[in-house]
Amino acid sequence: MRYRDFFVKTLRESPKGEESRNAQLLIRAGMVDKTMAGVYNYLPLGLAVIRKIEAIVREEMLKAGAAELLMPALHPKRIWEENGRWEILGDIMYQFKDNSGSDVGLGTTHEEVIVDMARKRVKSWRDLPLALFQIQTKFRNEQRPKSGVLRGREFIMKDLYSFHATLDDLNDYYDKMKAVYLRIYERLQVPVKIVEASGGTFTTEFSHEFQVLTEIGEDTIFYCPKCDFAQNNEIAKVEEGQACPNDCGGKIMKANGIEVGNIFRFFDKYGTEMKLTYTDKDSRVMPVLLCSYGIGITRLFGTLAELNHDEQGLKLPTVVAPFQVVVVSLPDKLEAAAAIYEELKAKGVAVIIDDRPDISLGEKIIDADLIGWPYKIIVGNNHSTTDSLEVVTRATGETAIMTLTKFVSGL
Amino acid sequence: MRYRDFFVKTLRESPKGEESRNAQLLIRAGMVDKTMAGVYNYLPLGLAVIRKIEAIVREEMLKAGAAELLMPALHPKRIWEENGRWEILGDIMYQFKDNSGSDVGLGTTHEEVIVDMARKRVKSWRDLPLALFQIQTKFRNEQRPKSGVLRGREFIMKDLYSFHATLDDLNDYYDKMKAVYLRIYERLQVPVKIVEASGGTFTTEFSHEFQVLTEIGEDTIFYCPKCDFAQNNEIAKVEEGQACPNDCGGKIMKANGIEVGNIFRFFDKYGTEMKLTYTDKDSRVMPVLLCSYGIGITRLFGTLAELNHDEQGLKLPTVVAPFQVVVVSLPDKLEAAAAIYEELKAKGVAVIIDDRPDISLGEKIIDADLIGWPYKIIVGNNHSTTDSLEVVTRATGETAIMTLTKFVSGL
Repeated sequence: MRYRDFFVKTLRESPKGEESRNAQLLIRAGMVDKTMAGVYNYLPLGLAVIRKIEAIVREEMLKAGAAELLMPALHPKRIWEENGRWEILGDIMYQFKDNSGSDVGLGTTHEEVIVDMARKRVKSWRDLPLALFQIQTKFRNEQRPKSGVLRGREFIMKDLYSFHATLDDLNDYYDKMKAVYLRIYERLQVPVKIVEASGGTFTTEFSHEFQVLTEIGEDTIFYCPKCDFAQNNEIAKVEEGQACPNDCGGKIMKANGIEVGNIFRFFDKYGTEMKLTYTDKDSRVMPVLLCSYGIGITRLFGTLAELNHDEQGLKLPTVVAPFQVVVVSLPDKLEAAAAIYEELKAKGVAVIIDDRPDISLGEKIIDADLIGWPYKIIVGNNHSTTDSLEVVTRATGETAIMTLTKFVSGL
Repeated sequence: MRYRDFFVKTLRESPKGEESRNAQLLIRAGMVDKTMAGVYNYLPLGLAVIRKIEAIVREEMLKAGAAELLMPALHPKRIWEENGRWEILGDIMYQFKDNSGSDVGLGTTHEEVIVDMARKRVKSWRDLPLALFQIQTKFRNEQRPKSGVLRGREFIMKDLYSFHATLDDLNDYYDKMKAVYLRIYERLQVPVKIVEASGGTFTTEFSHEFQVLTEIGEDTIFYCPKCDFAQNNEIAKVEEGQACPNDCGGKIMKANGIEVGNIFRFFDKYGTEMKLTYTDKDSRVMPVLLCSYGIGITRLFGTLAELNHDEQGLKLPTVVAPFQVVVVSLPDKLEAAAAIYEELKAKGVAVIIDDRPDISLGEKIIDADLIGWPYKIIVGNNHSTTDSLEVVTRATGETAIMTLTKFVSGL
């Protein structure tokens, strides 16, 4: 790929009116553009990162036996009224009247829509368990969005819904999904802590959040560094510095977390309130049990930017980088650079070339570091053949001279 | 894949309150669910078809040198006011106030958003030409949607925008894209006619629509069956039955078309009105020239349903079918069916098995025909081994007996 074909356009100056660090980094790297506060336009570089995050999440969902569907953003008030959530979510849900005079809302979550669909099709114990997910755009009527792509008015989520006949089956799948979530974050190199949170008004059981413990997060978490005790401030009855309630000998610490996922057991709430029922083996009509499981895709994108950068710009993990290698050169070495680029491409390397004429090597390096390609190949006067590549690793800053064959074998 | 893992759930009765044939077919086949009028929930089967349509469109866009991005659905009134389109589109654009008191709209199209992004980044003649596309969800405030997924309040579009320095370059790319569009429709087996339509208020040049000439479409087209003359009724000055104005000897005919694509030359309209400019080789500041090119992805889905069905249900083209082969069996032949299914899967065939116990073979065949799998393998008493498969082709209704090896080699 060539820079001009992929619309690689960095900005040297910090964008005006953008206070969040992740959005500043992503805008300067040419990954996103800001359309309005809390609403971002994902440029080819940024979309490539998002697609890689989505691919990992999708792969793990399919592996866990879930099928993918795609639900709408426009929701009728009718279904949200059945359990009173139209009013409860009124502050954060965009709600308005359409041209026919009906009330509609933009989905912040999809329990109501999926239950409305499932109650037309799930009839018998044979239809359960069932797991369905989507990767879809959601909306939140934030008054003053200020956290960049971490908390937008419009954002991409993966949401999974599981339907069960028995409590045991529900709890088994819930625990299985905890493990799936941990694997997803591990693959994305995002360190998370499982945090207990409120289960809502209808149950004394906890829900669970997956929190990245960093100072820029919006949530307050109390946790023990020695064991797995971790609760958010809504439910925690501990204080910073006190002994861990698990008696593990650790002392409670406090942190501002980024919530990159949450999982929730609704039990029979929806089955009862929205009449999603099934007939069991003894012909009794029973409420279907429901769980839901969210992962913020664009929030993960912003989290990766917050976790992986330095003064020069982004250094996203290799697993989500849009391309692995960039070739940059002196202006009069463009042909030599193109030959190296072609050979890397022929060997199946995900490589991009900065093909801009009349741009100095220094400027190309500054731009490459803003974007954070994992490897830079620098084509100067001394190292401009496949026998002698100058390779700089973005993560460590280390420079090495090697043959192209050796470089490719080490990728 | 097994029916239960893919949530294959047909409905035997016609859905209530759905007047359009495409939505009736798709709902009964278990491909979509209706959330509200004009708003559909794409179930795993339907989403699989949509993803196949998208993949073909995306492949052709990338081949034509366009890069993919993803723009938002929420648009600020600010940018739509710059050229007066906020008011012009007021009737069909969802427009409302957010929690901060600002006016926002849901995107029906994205010229304003992409121009707002491009004017921050396109500076010089070296940045042109440029082609960017997205596959994204759009919204239209339809008062009484009644055409199923052909014209929803929420729908998926592919929209491409090309930016040019010169008129020649613009016209070359516009003609190239006409050919790309024809190839896309050919691959999807959707017969289209290129129809001249109004270029809007700012130019006397035509825009072009890609119309499927069928009685259920919403548009009226006058065309000549002998040459390429075709105009929509907004601009046509001809009448049914009159001699073709091209003097080809043909007689003008009239038809209700489905518009499955349109392409539009805006020339310098946006460059001028929204100040998207570039500096040319002689350091003059010039307006950038713009075209846009749309394809309705979900509309194509509905069109395929309208074009490909019979009394028994859907028969979508192989190229978009979620799976190529279904294995259905007598209830007491489930094991033999599973063995055939496993062998087909091992040979790389996109195969699904109707694994429902206690469902008669007759009912399984009815459901398979509703969905329209291209090939049914019927495992009964006589044909239940890999040496003797009973294969029914959905498109023709023909039955043949053959070995599994022969069947696979003919796919």
